[in-house]
Amino acid sequence: MRYRDAGVDVGRSDALKDHLLDDVTATWTPAVRRLRGGFAGVMAWPGTAAAAGREGALLAATMDGVGTKLHLAIAAGRVADAAADLVAHGVDDLLAHGARPLAFLDYIAQGRLDPGVVREVVRGLARGCRDAGAVLLGGETAEMPDTYREGVVDVAGCMIGWVAPGALLDGGAVVAGDVLLGLAAAGLHTNGYSLARRVLAARGRVLADALPRGGGVTIGDALLAPHRSYGPALWPELGGPRVHAAAHVTGGGIAANLVRVLPDGCRARIDALPEPPAVMRWLIEAGAIPAEDARRTFNLGVGMIVVAAAATAGALAADLAARGERVLPLGAIVAGPRGVDLPDG
Amino acid sequence: MRYRDAGVDVGRSDALKDHLLDDVTATWTPAVRRLRGGFAGVMAWPGTAAAAGREGALLAATMDGVGTKLHLAIAAGRVADAAADLVAHGVDDLLAHGARPLAFLDYIAQGRLDPGVVREVVRGLARGCRDAGAVLLGGETAEMPDTYREGVVDVAGCMIGWVAPGALLDGGAVVAGDVLLGLAAAGLHTNGYSLARRVLAARGRVLADALPRGGGVTIGDALLAPHRSYGPALWPELGGPRVHAAAHVTGGGIAANLVRVLPDGCRARIDALPEPPAVMRWLIEAGAIPAEDARRTFNLGVGMIVVAAAATAGALAADLAARGERVLPLGAIVAGPRGVDLPDG
Repeated sequence: MRYRDAGVDVGRSDALKDHLLDDVTATWTPAVRRLRGGFAGVMAWPGTAAAAGREGALLAATMDGVGTKLHLAIAAGRVADAAADLVAHGVDDLLAHGARPLAFLDYIAQGRLDPGVVREVVRGLARGCRDAGAVLLGGETAEMPDTYREGVVDVAGCMIGWVAPGALLDGGAVVAGDVLLGLAAAGLHTNGYSLARRVLAARGRVLADALPRGGGVTIGDALLAPHRSYGPALWPELGGPRVHAAAHVTGGGIAANLVRVLPDGCRARIDALPEPPAVMRWLIEAGAIPAEDARRTFNLGVGMIVVAAAATAGALAADLAARGERVLPLGAIVAGPRGVDLPDG
Repeated sequence: MRYRDAGVDVGRSDALKDHLLDDVTATWTPAVRRLRGGFAGVMAWPGTAAAAGREGALLAATMDGVGTKLHLAIAAGRVADAAADLVAHGVDDLLAHGARPLAFLDYIAQGRLDPGVVREVVRGLARGCRDAGAVLLGGETAEMPDTYREGVVDVAGCMIGWVAPGALLDGGAVVAGDVLLGLAAAGLHTNGYSLARRVLAARGRVLADALPRGGGVTIGDALLAPHRSYGPALWPELGGPRVHAAAHVTGGGIAANLVRVLPDGCRARIDALPEPPAVMRWLIEAGAIPAEDARRTFNLGVGMIVVAAAATAGALAADLAARGERVLPLGAIVAGPRGVDLPDG
């Protein structure tokens, strides 16, 4: 089963984005930072440079949706958790540019607003915001019977943050010799759910079923594991010398996201990938998903990749572990054409 | 035909919002301004106070969706215009707090991404952003076959702006004697489209039909008239003494939005409402819409209400007219219990 069969065509979306870029960048003023990576948009905040006698904090913002994880969350009665995931996703997008969360605004839409569902979404967003140190600054609920199918909800949100100019991560600090440290994901985070749902349907599995070789957890618990926020681990590093770049592993997988933070002349050589979480192994096997598709669809257990200064990578890894992360040594940056080499398999 | 019959229950949405408020405000820190109005969220921007020796610009942000106007826009091949409307809506929300646009981020979702539709949406958003002096800083496209009905699109967006503390409008400057100046709307703007579509269907009308007593325009042209941005008219007033408050007339109509900017002890007395645009008159008549419902659903031709200092209201009205606005004298602020009195009818 290929990802395209599950109703989502990653390739088409990417091609579309290229076409849109001209329209988008035509609106950009010199205030906008033209960043490698593009996990969030970054621009100058008005007035701060002149007022402070030095450049003030930059604005960083990113828009995301929860995606089809929401279907599973509704079925499992865990909508609040999926909503909190959206906030964590925004935190991680900001981290890729060295930015910290400030405020979140949500958009919640259904065919008919189900007060219980909306309440749970907002409860989850609020919890995610408190964990992130962001305020839930605003939101919109929309009731559109002719747009949304019955019984579903869509939730999108904009995370607004800030980054001191000296702390901005844009790939420019990456050099050959840097060490690639993966931070373990809790599960699929927010990518690959269309495919996962298709596999469940094709195999006649339900969320309450035990996950094969899953050590006793259900498929539902494994699929709905929360999106990890790497903020508590990485916020202490922002503005410091130990982190040269960070890639949030989201749609497109490890290679497609890691390449976004590489400068020309730098190549990421990944020597080994960790064993993916049991739920991904089962999805890949049960869905007969080709390895190439799995790599472009799932994070394979790596939620964030830190490009670390070589001299301090060991100490950084130890500190990240002390902050609760499972640190996965992945490889290194080498001189070469911009790109990512994954191990065979 | 009541608005509830058209599939949108304003009352239920409002009750729901009340229930959500506790969860939302639980995330708020002292950085958040607790404003009357709430057309946008406003909070301190980090670091500016200390760095500048005076409080720097405040962050203002608002999330909105286009709503079901998009269905008509797709049918008429005018998706870009509806997308531009969303940006204008954000501009007007910011104006209600004296804020200026800085950046916009969009969320575009369909069951299957139609590249032509997405391209048009982004083109319209980019045009709206250029007109508003905002940059299109980011966005997300989502393809969710099990969430969205076929052939439709939903577009939401977050407008981020800024306001100098001394320019902040929060209703606190409103006093008895202030003059209410309406700024004419171009049409429905972004509210009442579910009801309008129901009327069209019930009366067997299509967009290409001539609008009865519409002076030759089609129903489609009248319904899809752009959402006016009042930025060019009002930006020169921000921070000045002539505007005490501004209410963006959106969902809920004139009374429900005007009351949002009134302090305790101030009552808005509207002496006369202008003749609504021809398209609203026709919808009200063809749909047999009760007057009370029409007032809670449509802007009735008033897109923005400026609460103007009495001594300079005449000069302000003249200047707004010179900037291209049709200024509608509506009434005045009087001492009394907080509320809005509309004329009979």
